[in-house]
Amino acid sequence: MKHISESTVRRLSVYLRSLEEHAQRGLSTISSDELAGLGGTTSAQVRKDLSLFGSFGTRGLGYPVPELASRLRDILGLGREWRVVIVGAGKIGAALARYQGFEQRGFHVVAVYDSDERKIGTHWDSLVVRDVAFLPADVRKQHPDIAVLAVPAESAQAMLDRLVSAGFRAVLNFAPTRLEAPDHVTVRTVNMAMELEGLSFALANRDG
Amino acid sequence: MKHISESTVRRLSVYLRSLEEHAQRGLSTISSDELAGLGGTTSAQVRKDLSLFGSFGTRGLGYPVPELASRLRDILGLGREWRVVIVGAGKIGAALARYQGFEQRGFHVVAVYDSDERKIGTHWDSLVVRDVAFLPADVRKQHPDIAVLAVPAESAQAMLDRLVSAGFRAVLNFAPTRLEAPDHVTVRTVNMAMELEGLSFALANRDG
Repeated sequence: MKHISESTVRRLSVYLRSLEEHAQRGLSTISSDELAGLGGTTSAQVRKDLSLFGSFGTRGLGYPVPELASRLRDILGLGREWRVVIVGAGKIGAALARYQGFEQRGFHVVAVYDSDERKIGTHWDSLVVRDVAFLPADVRKQHPDIAVLAVPAESAQAMLDRLVSAGFRAVLNFAPTRLEAPDHVTVRTVNMAMELEGLSFALANRDG
Repeated sequence: MKHISESTVRRLSVYLRSLEEHAQRGLSTISSDELAGLGGTTSAQVRKDLSLFGSFGTRGLGYPVPELASRLRDILGLGREWRVVIVGAGKIGAALARYQGFEQRGFHVVAVYDSDERKIGTHWDSLVVRDVAFLPADVRKQHPDIAVLAVPAESAQAMLDRLVSAGFRAVLNFAPTRLEAPDHVTVRTVNMAMELEGLSFALANRDG
């Protein structure tokens, strides 16, 4: 498959949510204009994004909602369960371990790790925080798919290197720092300050 | 100013981070190709994005790093302090109240609110969790700019309505649900599952 940018994938996720809301309201077709409006983009962009994955919809009739939603779930890899481990048992780790939205999408948190002896062994609902030293052996047994990195910025690169050595190919990073990984590993960084910048932009550029 | 999409603003934030790293390495110019590579987009997109805000750079010489960074900080409204309140003193609220990346960018958390009597009055470093009933009066005195909504999905819309009534025009929502707000209010939703979908996409569409 040709290279698909991170922002394209993000738009696919947004389209999927719009389609699901449309389906909940009992609507069976949606136009590229409607999808664009719900996703904050243009209808040309919607058509371009969807054309990357084949031919959808009928000119003049729009896209069939359940079929397109199903196809997007396939494209996004949502047809199966993904096993997720959280590395870093601090506040962000705790928030993510209990985040309702993960299970809804098939992201199942199977383990939490930390290196701090005061955290190791504490109970988080059905999980017990494990010593990060056990991570490589656990990975060989449990084959998790995705690691969520929720450690301080200064230890994030070293921990990422350990995750790569343990065999992870997909990491979601919450440390506010850029990380280096080999080409076969996908790292996405969630930067909370960047989310706020979208709001400071709106406030700074608004009349009045 | 013409309408600027959320994804454009997101790219501006990414460009700013790339410029700052470039500056730290002592580099004084950057090409649109380099900015594109660091930001995961194309050089045509970089030129288009930056042209929305005027004329930058010199053909063949690239963009001047400190000047462009400074201009982007202005555009993103980062030249001042923004006062942020957190509504919802759960795990996500706690993680955000202590998130290092906010202060670095001038986002200053001034208050935390909840409606749960067991949480009201508890201390979070220098903050004390306040009863959300005090929010309207606090807003009139303290003039916060941005509200972070970190409440369960089922109470998010009702709480957003209260924030709008209190005068907020910018809200960052962490509840995994779509919210309705008047046109003069900017709501951005951070969806953690969507971030993971970028990774499930990468894993599902990778060879091997």
